[in-house]
Amino acid sequence: LRVANKFLSVEPAMRGWIADAGNYAEPVPIGGVMRSLAVGEVLESRTPAFAPGDQVTGWFGWQERAVFDAAAVVRRVRETDLPLSLALGVLGINGVTAHLALTGIGRPVAGETVLVSTAAGAVGSAVGQIAKILGCRTVGIAGGPAKVAQCRDEFGYDAAIDYKAPGLSEAIAAACPGGVNVYFDNTAGAISDAVYPQLALRARVVICGTASIPAWEPWPHGPRVERHLLVKRASMQGFVIFDHMNAYEGSVATLAQWVREGRLRYREDILDGIEACPDALAGLYRGENNGKRIIRLA
Amino acid sequence: LRVANKFLSVEPAMRGWIADAGNYAEPVPIGGVMRSLAVGEVLESRTPAFAPGDQVTGWFGWQERAVFDAAAVVRRVRETDLPLSLALGVLGINGVTAHLALTGIGRPVAGETVLVSTAAGAVGSAVGQIAKILGCRTVGIAGGPAKVAQCRDEFGYDAAIDYKAPGLSEAIAAACPGGVNVYFDNTAGAISDAVYPQLALRARVVICGTASIPAWEPWPHGPRVERHLLVKRASMQGFVIFDHMNAYEGSVATLAQWVREGRLRYREDILDGIEACPDALAGLYRGENNGKRIIRLA
Repeated sequence: LRVANKFLSVEPAMRGWIADAGNYAEPVPIGGVMRSLAVGEVLESRTPAFAPGDQVTGWFGWQERAVFDAAAVVRRVRETDLPLSLALGVLGINGVTAHLALTGIGRPVAGETVLVSTAAGAVGSAVGQIAKILGCRTVGIAGGPAKVAQCRDEFGYDAAIDYKAPGLSEAIAAACPGGVNVYFDNTAGAISDAVYPQLALRARVVICGTASIPAWEPWPHGPRVERHLLVKRASMQGFVIFDHMNAYEGSVATLAQWVREGRLRYREDILDGIEACPDALAGLYRGENNGKRIIRLA
Repeated sequence: LRVANKFLSVEPAMRGWIADAGNYAEPVPIGGVMRSLAVGEVLESRTPAFAPGDQVTGWFGWQERAVFDAAAVVRRVRETDLPLSLALGVLGINGVTAHLALTGIGRPVAGETVLVSTAAGAVGSAVGQIAKILGCRTVGIAGGPAKVAQCRDEFGYDAAIDYKAPGLSEAIAAACPGGVNVYFDNTAGAISDAVYPQLALRARVVICGTASIPAWEPWPHGPRVERHLLVKRASMQGFVIFDHMNAYEGSVATLAQWVREGRLRYREDILDGIEACPDALAGLYRGENNGKRIIRLA
């Protein structure tokens, strides 16, 4: 397949892929093409499964034109009534991660309180809205007044907390008077340390990312979690989307229907040109982005 | 019911029950009777469910004679062919905890490696043997050469490691070349910190106790666990036996059969007289006991 990439994804996980340390994916070698999901149009195909003009998303890398085996394709984009770029966000790895990790590990029950860190982010904003669709009370944690307002006004959180303001623990306690039934975590670090003591009995913690920790060398320390898990009979579990690709297509269909119905909103942060890629990733860790960060190619 | 207690239990969990801090059970008030499982003989009964001479185990407290409502009885002891004291150990809360936590949270599969901290202890020794019965490779961690030898010779561990010797991480790596599929933890602390980096993909960590941590004020810190859980798609979950009393009777029947068949061995550490109780508990945290610590009453 030869594909003209239209949009490239920028993911926090990429920070780990270019580190010289064990990870859930092979490191990207120095001088290699950055592993990345992209969405584009087939220019040429030597497999009958695809034809020129097809819109496909897959592991096409940070490049303008890509030639690869059909195995790199994650899926054909069927939601032609919706913007193509959504295949990298709410209808892509972010939305599917939010959906499958929340339902598979978080297992929220209507009426429970779901707390989301990076609540205005690409994954978190979908988590909050899906939890709301499932009948939960939703509380978001985000950085700064603008994102907090966005959580409430745009993503429908019942309450939103600014982790940069003083009194994080007290704010969580006030927003979650019955404790936290599901904590969907994308940050680790000080935010999680404020959440763990407030887990409800039999709480479920979804470990989906560690965005507040820029490097794991030296390995950061924090308050031990074992006692919380024991006393609360709580569980923590890590989620990596690559394990769940067989559920991807069904999840996208569900998410797309919610988008069409106006029940699942999204925010994109689009930068232009392949030159923007490296700093777009660094900027994620500076908290600069507002929504799913995507590179648009001409 | 009026009961003459024959044996009283001494549990690491009691340390938490007398602390002025949140726990999974109400604190024992100053001047109150220490909450404790005991086994004894009914002297007098005002309920038709029990008659004088019946052997019963339940929450009779650290006392020689106890008068209580029948609701305090956990079960009638039916294994009259086996020693009565086993109702407080391998056929009591320790054995049932080992059995239900290992199978319910650890979910070991034949051929997997199960690593147990406090491997020679009342819970740990049962975990190791049950995992072996289920077809797993078992590795025990214990303190000192005598307990390590006991793990191998008495409890059938495939390998045993002395955490007091230097090179704990290296010893775990050597004993678990394919990583740790199930970590059954009773300690937290430095032992767990050496285990977490060696979890296998999709490992399950059973949080059953935190015996290496004498106090949680000030709250102890350690290396963060989130990254391990994410990269390995691993899970950690706390287990408290009180949530599983409906499965207790069936578990005891299974365990008793294994004891009769000689497949499940136990070690008791019996002290005499009710005066021995307080220091018997303190001694658990000094690592003095050799087997399930029990107080025998005249």
